[in-house]
Parts: sequence; C-alpha cells; structure tokens
Amino acid sequence: MDERIHEERRKIDEVNAEILRLISKRGEITAQIGLLQTALGLPHYDPERENQMLIALVEANRGPLSDEAIKQLFKEIFRASLDMEECQDQHKMLYSRKVKPEDTRVYAGPAVFGKAPLLIAGPCSIESEEQMMEVAGFLSGHGVQVLRGGAYKPRTSPYAFQGLGKAALLLGRLAADRYHMAFVTEVMDTRDVGLVAEYADILQVGARSMQNFALLREVGQAGRPVLLKRGMSATVEEWFYAAEYVLAAGNAQVILAERGIRTYEKWTRNTLDLSAVALAKQETHLPVVVDVTHAAGRIDLLAPLARAALAAGADAVHVEVHPNPRVALSDNQQQMDFVQFEAFMARLTDLFPMNEVPAVQKD
Amino acid sequence: MDERIHEERRKIDEVNAEILRLISKRGEITAQIGLLQTALGLPHYDPERENQMLIALVEANRGPLSDEAIKQLFKEIFRASLDMEECQDQHKMLYSRKVKPEDTRVYAGPAVFGKAPLLIAGPCSIESEEQMMEVAGFLSGHGVQVLRGGAYKPRTSPYAFQGLGKAALLLGRLAADRYHMAFVTEVMDTRDVGLVAEYADILQVGARSMQNFALLREVGQAGRPVLLKRGMSATVEEWFYAAEYVLAAGNAQVILAERGIRTYEKWTRNTLDLSAVALAKQETHLPVVVDVTHAAGRIDLLAPLARAALAAGADAVHVEVHPNPRVALSDNQQQMDFVQFEAFMARLTDLFPMNEVPAVQKD
Amino acid sequence: MDERIHEERRKIDEVNAEILRLISKRGEITAQIGLLQTALGLPHYDPERENQMLIALVEANRGPLSDEAIKQLFKEIFRASLDMEECQDQHKMLYSRKVKPEDTRVYAGPAVFGKAPLLIAGPCSIESEEQMMEVAGFLSGHGVQVLRGGAYKPRTSPYAFQGLGKAALLLGRLAADRYHMAFVTEVMDTRDVGLVAEYADILQVGARSMQNFALLREVGQAGRPVLLKRGMSATVEEWFYAAEYVLAAGNAQVILAERGIRTYEKWTRNTLDLSAVALAKQETHLPVVVDVTHAAGRIDLLAPLARAALAAGADAVHVEVHPNPRVALSDNQQQMDFVQFEAFMARLTDLFPMNEVPAVQKD
Amino acid sequence: MDERIHEERRKIDEVNAEILRLISKRGEITAQIGLLQTALGLPHYDPERENQMLIALVEANRGPLSDEAIKQLFKEIFRASLDMEECQDQHKMLYSRKVKPEDTRVYAGPAVFGKAPLLIAGPCSIESEEQMMEVAGFLSGHGVQVLRGGAYKPRTSPYAFQGLGKAALLLGRLAADRYHMAFVTEVMDTRDVGLVAEYADILQVGARSMQNFALLREVGQAGRPVLLKRGMSATVEEWFYAAEYVLAAGNAQVILAERGIRTYEKWTRNTLDLSAVALAKQETHLPVVVDVTHAAGRIDLLAPLARAALAAGADAVHVEVHPNPRVALSDNQQQMDFVQFEAFMARLTDLFPMNEVPAVQKD
Repeated sequence: MDERIHEERRKIDEVNAEILRLISKRGEITAQIGLLQTALGLPHYDPERENQMLIALVEANRGPLSDEAIKQLFKEIFRASLDMEECQDQHKMLYSRKVKPEDTRVYAGPAVFGKAPLLIAGPCSIESEEQMMEVAGFLSGHGVQVLRGGAYKPRTSPYAFQGLGKAALLLGRLAADRYHMAFVTEVMDTRDVGLVAEYADILQVGARSMQNFALLREVGQAGRPVLLKRGMSATVEEWFYAAEYVLAAGNAQVILAERGIRTYEKWTRNTLDLSAVALAKQETHLPVVVDVTHAAGRIDLLAPLARAALAAGADAVHVEVHPNPRVALSDNQQQMDFVQFEAFMARLTDLFPMNEVPAVQKD
Repeated sequence: MDERIHEERRKIDEVNAEILRLISKRGEITAQIGLLQTALGLPHYDPERENQMLIALVEANRGPLSDEAIKQLFKEIFRASLDMEECQDQHKMLYSRKVKPEDTRVYAGPAVFGKAPLLIAGPCSIESEEQMMEVAGFLSGHGVQVLRGGAYKPRTSPYAFQGLGKAALLLGRLAADRYHMAFVTEVMDTRDVGLVAEYADILQVGARSMQNFALLREVGQAGRPVLLKRGMSATVEEWFYAAEYVLAAGNAQVILAERGIRTYEKWTRNTLDLSAVALAKQETHLPVVVDVTHAAGRIDLLAPLARAALAAGADAVHVEVHPNPRVALSDNQQQMDFVQFEAFMARLTDLFPMNEVPAVQKD
Repeated sequence: MDERIHEERRKIDEVNAEILRLISKRGEITAQIGLLQTALGLPHYDPERENQMLIALVEANRGPLSDEAIKQLFKEIFRASLDMEECQDQHKMLYSRKVKPEDTRVYAGPAVFGKAPLLIAGPCSIESEEQMMEVAGFLSGHGVQVLRGGAYKPRTSPYAFQGLGKAALLLGRLAADRYHMAFVTEVMDTRDVGLVAEYADILQVGARSMQNFALLREVGQAGRPVLLKRGMSATVEEWFYAAEYVLAAGNAQVILAERGIRTYEKWTRNTLDLSAVALAKQETHLPVVVDVTHAAGRIDLLAPLARAALAAGADAVHVEVHPNPRVALSDNQQQMDFVQFEAFMARLTDLFPMNEVPAVQKD
Repeated sequence: MDERIHEERRKIDEVNAEILRLISKRGEITAQIGLLQTALGLPHYDPERENQMLIALVEANRGPLSDEAIKQLFKEIFRASLDMEECQDQHKMLYSRKVKPEDTRVYAGPAVFGKAPLLIAGPCSIESEEQMMEVAGFLSGHGVQVLRGGAYKPRTSPYAFQGLGKAALLLGRLAADRYHMAFVTEVMDTRDVGLVAEYADILQVGARSMQNFALLREVGQAGRPVLLKRGMSATVEEWFYAAEYVLAAGNAQVILAERGIRTYEKWTRNTLDLSAVALAKQETHLPVVVDVTHAAGRIDLLAPLARAALAAGADAVHVEVHPNPRVALSDNQQQMDFVQFEAFMARLTDLFPMNEVPAVQKD
C-alpha cells in the first residue's frame, strides 16, 4: 500500500473524529428540542423544518460531493436524530422482545399457548350439532385442546355458503364445553365482535381482515385472546403492526398465525413461509401458530409441513378435520377425515409431546 | 397414414356419436332433476350423491382406462351438468356483460364515469380548509371533476396519523361544493358508512378492504356510488366477485379501480396490471379507474402509465396532488405538487380530451 | 327427498353405466391406434384429427348441453385416452417415485446424499489458498463432508467480481483433498463443463441456470453428480423437469436444491419454500438439499430454517461460511464466520446426528 | 412555536454548517485517495479499512446517539464518498441515458427500431417451408417488417418438441429474404451463437436466458443486434444489467423486451409490467419491445395491451401468428390465426402508423 494513501487516511481519521464530535453535539441539541416538543405536545417530526435545513445546506454546498449526496447524507443525520427519539418509541412497540423479553403465554380455556406445542383442529365450517359433537369427541380423544369451526365464513362469492352465524357459535360452544376444549372462531364485522366474544374462547381475525384496522381495535377491547392470521400478501412487518393494533387497544393476549402467502406456485394453495415464523419468534414475544391446511391446500403435505413448523419454533399447528369431508359445505378438498388425521398424528409423534399422552376423554 | 389407423378411427367416430347421444340424454334427465330441486328448495350440488355414483362407476370399471381416469371423466360430466344449471346463474352474475352488455355509467355530482375519460385528483389526506380549498380550486381550474381526499386513513402502524375523520369529511364536502366537483373518500368501518355517505358523493373501498365482505354489503345499501379498489394481491376474479357483493346488495353504481399488485419488483411501489383493466372492460360493464399514484409510488412514471391506462380502455385516472407535498402528513413522496401536475397533464393532451378544453372555474 | 328425484336418479345410473361401457370401448380402440402409431413412428397426439372430431360432434349436438360443454367434455375424453398412453410415459419419467420407488443415494467423495443428513459449507467465492485451507480445515473439524466455493460467479453486474475461474477450481480441489471432503462448485457455461468436472466432485447448476437446457444436457453427460438449484421463480414442476433433462441425458446422480423463491417479502432475501421440499421427497426419489443461506440472506434465521428443513425431510443443509466475511469479495452480508457457524451448529444438535460425532480426520 | 425551540434550532443550523464543511473536506481527501488508488490499480472499495474506521468511531462514541446509529451514519458517509467515485462509473454505465442521452436506433434488415413503431410477428416454432412462406407473405402484406420464428425452443420438458434447429434457421432466412423482412430467432447455447448469427438478423435472448451471462457475452460479440427478453422474475435493474453485459462486450445494438412477469394471477399467463417499459424508456436509450403474446397468453387481450404498450412508449409490439394455430407444434393456444391478426390490427389503427399504409407485397 502506497505511503501517500496512508498519509491521506490519517487525515481522514482526524476528520472522522471531528464529524463524530459534531454529530454527537447535534444529537444533544436535538434531544433537548425533543423534550421541549413533548412538553408542548408537538410532534417530533417536522418536515417543513427539515426542508428548510436541506435548502440552506444545498445552498451552502461547494462540493466536491453533489447536492444530492449532501441532501441524502443530512436526511440520514435527521433520521438518526429522529430514530434516537423513536428508539424510545420502539422500546414502546408492544409486540417487541425489546419491550418484553420473555415469551407471552396465552390462556384460552384449558389451553395454554406458548408452553408445550398445541394442536388446533376442527371443521372449516360448523354445519350441525352431530358434526360438531362427533369431531370434538374424536379430537379431544386424541389430545387436541383447541376446537376450531367457522360460524361466519369469508367467501369470495356472495352466493356461496356464508356460515350459520349465531347458531354455529352456539354449536361450537356446546361441543367445546362438552369435551373441555377451547373454541376458536373467526369474526369479520366490528358489529359482531361482542356476540362472538360471548361464545368463543379465542377470536380469530382472518387473513382477509389482517388490515381491517377497525376490527383490530375492536377485538383489542373484547376481553378475549385474539388469533391474528397473516394477510395473504402481508409482509412480516405489516403482520407485526397489525398485532400492535390489538396490543395497543389493551389486549395482551395475541397469537400470531402464519398460513402461507400467495405466490406463483400452483401445486400448493399458498406458500408456507417459515422464515416468518422464525422472525416472529425472534422479534416478538407472542406465541405463533402455523395453519398448514390453508398453506398447503392438500392433505398429503400436512405432516411434513407441521414437522417443519414445530422445528422452526411454532407453538401450535392448525389443521382442518371433518367427519366426512366429501360432503362438507366448504373447502371439501383440504379437510382431513378421521383416518387421515390419525395418520397425520402418527407422523408427528416425536415432535408433538401431546401425541404421546393422549388425553383421557372426560365425558 | 396407415389404412388400419383409418379403419380404427371410423370406429372411434361411431363411438363418439353414441357417447354424445348418451351425454345429451343424461343432460335432459339432469335438467329435469334441477327443476324438481328448485321446486323443493334443494341445492343443485349434492356431493354425497356424486360420491355414490363415482363409487359405483369405479366398481364397474373393467379398464382399459384407470379408475382415476374414469373418476376424472365423470367428474367432468357431473360438472358439465352443474354448469348447465349454473350457466343460468352465470347469466345472473350482475357484473357480467353477459347479463348487461352495454356499459354502465356512474353518476356522481357533475361527473359521469363511463362517458369521456375523467381525472380523480386530490391530496392523500385532508389536512386543513386552506389545503382543500387551494387544491380544489387549482384542480377544477384544470378540468378535474372529481376531488379525492382521505378522512379515514388505513395506516400500517397504529401510531401513524389516522386521518381527521368527520372534520375532514366536512372539509372535503365544502371544497367540492365550492368548486362544483364530486367528492370521493374512503370508508373502512361498517359503522361509518352512514356518516361518510352523508358527505361524500362516492364511497371508496380501499385495497385492504376489498374482501371486507360486511363493508361491501353495507356500502351496497348506502345509496352512493362505490369505487372499489382491487386488493393488493387479489386475483381479477376475486375483484369481480367483490363488486358482485355490492351489486347484489342492490347498488348498481360500482366503479372498479386497479392500483397495482404486490410483486417482487422494487423500483415501483406496486406493479400496475393493465391486463386486469382490459379484462374488466371486456368481462364487466362497469367503469374502470386506474390509480397510477399507488401503482407507481413515484412521480416520474405517472404520465406514461396514465397514457397506457387510457389506451387500455380505462375510464378514469386517479392521481394524488397536494399543494405542498413535502409537508404532507402522509405519503409525501408520491404526491405531485401543482407544477408537477401541470407537467403531467401536458403529457396527456392527446389522450385526455378534458385536457384540451379546460373547464372554466365557476366560482 | 322427493320420490320423483329418486326415479330420475335411477335413470341417471343407467345412463352412467352405458357411458362407462362406451368410454371403455373407446379406450380399447385408442390403445389399438396407439400401438399402430408407435409401430409407424407416428406421434400419439394428432391435433388436426382432434379438431375434426370436435367439429363433427358440435355439428351433431342438439342440446341440452351447450356446444362449448360438449367440446370441453370430449377434450377431456381425448385427454383421458392420451393420458392412458402417456401414463406409460409418466411411468418413464425418470425422476418419479412411480418409476423408482426407493430413495436414490448420490455418492461424492466421502459424502453420501440420501443416507444421514449432511452439511454443505464453505465460502461464497474461492479467493485464496489461505482462505480455502483455513475454512476447509475448520469445517472438516466440525464434521462437514462437503466443501463449497465459487470459481465462476453469476453476478448481476458485468463489472462485479466474476470469480477466479480455473485457479479457483484448483484451490477448491486442493483444500477438499487435504481434508478428505467432497468439493462442489458451480458451472455456468456449456463449454466449461469438462474443465469443472476435472476438479469438482459435484457440478452445481445455479438458480439462474435451472432452465439453461443446453447446460442441463451437458452436465448430464459429464460423469459427475449434479446439484440442481431451483430457479428463483420456478414452479416445483419446472424444477422436476429440469432434473429430468439431466437424468434423461444418462446421469442418475442428481441432487435437488431448494434455495427460496422470489416474493414481495423484504425482511428475507427470498422466501424459503419447504412445501417444495416435501413435494420433492414425496414425488421424486432424489436427495434434496436446502440452501438456507440464499433463502434467508441473513444469518440470524439460519438455525431455525435449517431445523425446519431437516424436519421436512431434507437430506442436507447448505450454508456459506467464510473465515472473515467482512472482507469477502462477494455476498459479505450473509456468510457466517467461524464463531457464528459454531453457534449455528449448537442449535442443530438434536436433529443433526453428524454434529454429535465430529469427524476427527484433521490431517 | 416556543422560543426556546427556535433558540435550539439556531444552534442546530450552526452545527449543520460545520458538519457540511467537514464532510466536504473529507470528500476532497477521498477524491485524492481515489486518484492514488486508480494510479496504483487498487479498488476504491476497501471493506477492511472501513471496518477499522467503524471500530475506531464506535470506540470513541460517548453518545447520545447509539453505536448502531453512528455506524449507520458513517456507513452512509463512506457510501457517499464511494458514490462520488462510482458516479463517474455510473456515467460509464453504457445503457444509461446519462451516458448517451439520445435514443439508440437498432438496424436490422429493412427494420429500424427506435423510429416509428414496429411489429414483430410470426409463429412460435418454425415447422415447414409452406408454413413460413405463407405466414411471411401474409405478414409482410400487412406491413410487418420483422419475422419471428423459433428454431431452438426452450421447453420445460426434455421430451417436448425442441425445434428443428439448423433446418429451421434456413427456412426463416428464406422466408424473410423472399418478403424483404428482418428475421429474429432465439439462441440458447453459447456454442450456437455463430451459427444462428449466420442466418438471423437479430439474435433473441429468451427470458430463461436473461442471466445466462456467458451467452450474453457471446451475443455481445456476434455482430448482430440482440433482442433481450426480461427474465420471468427479473427486476428492472437486473434486466438493465443484463443489457450491460451485451453492451460491455462491444455490441451497441441492443433491444429490450418486456414479456410479463410471473405473479399469482391466473387469468393471464404472466402479468405485463408497463412500468418496466416506462422505466426502460426513461433510464436507458435503448429501444423497447413489448411481447403481448407471452404476457397475456390469451388472444382476446392482445389488442388492448398492445395499445397500452405503445401509449407507454414502446417502440415495437411482438405477437405470435400462425397459419393454423390448432395444429401448431407448440403454444397452440396463444397464437393468432390470420383472421384474428387482422382483427387485432384493426384495433390499433390510430396508434400504429404502419397500419395505415400497408406495405406493398413486393414479391
């Protein structure tokens, strides 16, 4: 390395040190302003002021860096100051492990999310008392603690079966009570939240509703745990922010649910994104469910995907099970029958402790 | 070609004719059953019955086609029968040109969608009376007939500016009235539909709400035209079905809006999908808007995309314009200022007749 | 259920049986034609003939099914006949478990893919002898049997470092030999296949080359195992067909490698698709590698994703490791240093048997 | 606004000015180093040196900004210095309008890309002399100047028709000569470039080969214009860099071709991305073609998409036309027959000047 380069680099080191000193000084003044703003109820971010500073700096710039580069750099400096204040906000992001390092446990009836791995299972739609009693009896006999079933179904077509509504809520509640299970069901309308919360142990916010912000606020005040599905093309960041809506409304009992994202692949209904699960476990303290049924859309992949989900750190797996899928009113291709469910469970024995000690059917 | 092959092909022709005769006979019986089912209030589709037929057929199959092939073929035959009945339903899909061949016009204040190309413009968020009066005056002076502005803002973070709500509705109404424009604004909560309908000429259902089915039904009964944005990863089919929810609720005044879909590309905010526009114009009778601002997320591409949208058949283009974008409370990177808007319009002169005859400012 | 419906359904059953009989008869004639065609060297599929049959059928159709439905149905019937013949072809798809039910093992130096889980590790690019000896020594000391390192680098920009070429091949070979490892490296140009095959134990076909069909044919004849990465937006089907190119060229030693697909998500470089791994294990007999480094593009997610990959059935995990990633010539953000690699391994102990019994063999 | 805030802001202004002075001083020293490095043949980017500076700065940091923020900021400062040097490199990016502001024209036989809008048309595959003469005669009679036709076909399955190879090249050349057209055909293997360049006027690099870097370099030296298709999930940036490979190899005659990207949408084969076309026209000086056939994959959308493409600034539209698509050997669903082509042209009359003055058939 040429000596002249070393010489110039020593000069750079000195300039670096001076810049550091000035940026730190600037940070102290900014912190001072931040306190004043907070005291006066003013926002930290003042784009007009930033704009004026940039104009003044560009006017003063004599090179060799371009005006564009100077603007870019000072925007970074502004952002660093803002981040310094928002860092405190960040430390207020309720979903973040920085705020709450230990895992959150969510309690729903007999089920505890965030302890040992759980299984959520049940039919796509609640269709009849016979159906629900049969499936709940079967599942609880295999150690499943959380019963799912749709009362309000999000359907692409307005003419498709939309769920039995309140009657279904009642049937779900009855079956869950009979077999000492927790009952989870989807709510889609802000006006239904109160009613659903009367019957369900867990309120599910579906993929299509992940950014229904009014609904998120409403379930945040309903006094029930919330299972929040990731939107079908939501980023991980958007998913966490959706959870923040619920948490910020005062409800700390939030479960995140990954269910696959929409991609070009045609052999599966969606593409299961286990990186999202790993990120959720790492960045948040919330329990995470993986809905392998909606991710795969085909029964033959459920077992390997459930294995992978648990290995990636998921707290629970969600599958659809129906006494007779061929006559189901919705999604009849992807629900397992009882024989298929038992084969599925057999392939999870080593990962699913629950499986080893089948709960005694109490009723 | 070998003579023996010709000989075998003649046999095939005979068998084809016989199969055709039987399938037609089958169709007549099915139609008869369909009439009986309708009379008895029974659904056409009976999966249990189909299942029994398949079991019987597979049992009777002696090859050479595999059981799987036989099942596949008969499922097709069943579907053809069902389609025959649903074809009548299809002829009942309200969005379809098969039901209503002529273009629908949507009337909102002084604006008529579906006649000459229109422009929808205005700020992302409604922030103050000065802002709205300034922008409405400017836009109406350039021939814009529809004023947009957000009162309720869908925001990824619960801590971001959520819009001024009712106060903003009032400001939007005032500015639109003053300059004889139609006012369009987004509604997100079923419980706000009535209020928004009091102030706005057009109710916007945003991309995040495209499958908020309760909201679709509610705006379907609000007595106002509805501008329905395509969801950020909705298929064209899902978009049309979302429109069907509004139409089926009794509201024939629906405008479809393409705003780009979410893809891997990073140089644009979304990927504008003009095939969707072409499909919407071909398969439906509804007017179509293209929101180039949210599609591109950058000002330099707005003009070529607007040109392309109109060439593909769009009835209107939607852009965001703000008197001073640098201080805007939301989306301040993608809103045009007045100078940029005039440059944008200058590049559309040949395609946008409105542009040639600037409306006289009436106030 | 109304008695008249039952009556009509009995008629349907009779018609079904007759259709079945005719379709079977048709199948026999088609099989006969298939034999004649094969004998005469003619293709099975004759679109012109199909077209003539469809025209004749539509002409003969008197309803109640629409001409469109009849065409659709007969196309299905034609396809069923064709499938019957292609089924034999399908039973000739070399990648398929239908052809070869038992798992394929791929042998490369001391490594056996398809037996116990393996680890492939090494730097992104081969940069120097010191680098390669250091990394190979370290990795082999931790039980890694397959050493990776790029000699020809696919780079987005023509001005970026393109790899050291032949010199790198030599260094990779030397390091692998010294530590008794297998050496895998990418080949991109048909004209380089011979040279690379002289030095490498396994020829890697990269994601960008998955549909470089000339290259696939060439590596199919090079006498070395091939590690075939899935293209960044390839469907699972396209991936299997790419493998078929290699297999059909006479090379049975193919390893499939999933490395994430390109989606809208920004927190990871790609989206790891473990459904593809599950499908590959189910539908093919080939060993499957999961490249977690390129999938995640960030070091903190490598361990949970590797765990998930193995749980889903993967035969090997691929990671990038560099003695000093900060000064690496390529991809310096995503390569692990030695400390990070040891932490990574510590999180896989239970799933990775290799980990428990570190190979001694330090030279 | 509180006076104390104003006071603090005045201090900020002073610090800003000082930081600007130092950053500029730093820039001058860096420029000096850059010159020395260039003289010594050293790279500008020295990650090890940057790393040492960061360690020193973090060590010196006493707050209030976090170490992370300081590192982030100085990385920006380093990048600004590097950009200053690379800006000169950027001014060396051959595709960029910054390097060459005026539009490039590409000359191929009688056709000039970059002047008036052109049409490229012809069959998917070259099948016979009759087919090529018939289609070339028809197309040239309608003013088409560029004849396409595949000799080497990229096919997903190794068992599908792979093109007639050299025989097809000859037929394409004959037909183009007979009707005074330019002939474009795809080349996939580096070893075929010389041969294809003997027969074709334009060498097409297909979507699957967009990042076959060896092929890009080879066609860059073949002395023929190159039509470079965007990869099916390539970013716009990657597409431009692929063009740079060809340009950097010495070939200035490059045509960019958008053909749709792979998304989740199922009603079209790909999603046409006209933002990419607008970006290509804005950022590069190269002519741009839009392949509406492969984008849409269905004939009914070709006309509106071609209209949109031309309105967005495309220099040419590419469509597939076959004398009898139903019997075509490949892609028989998406090729237009002659009647469909005339209907397509009729819908472009106003945008396509060529259409108005049909060329006299010269032979």
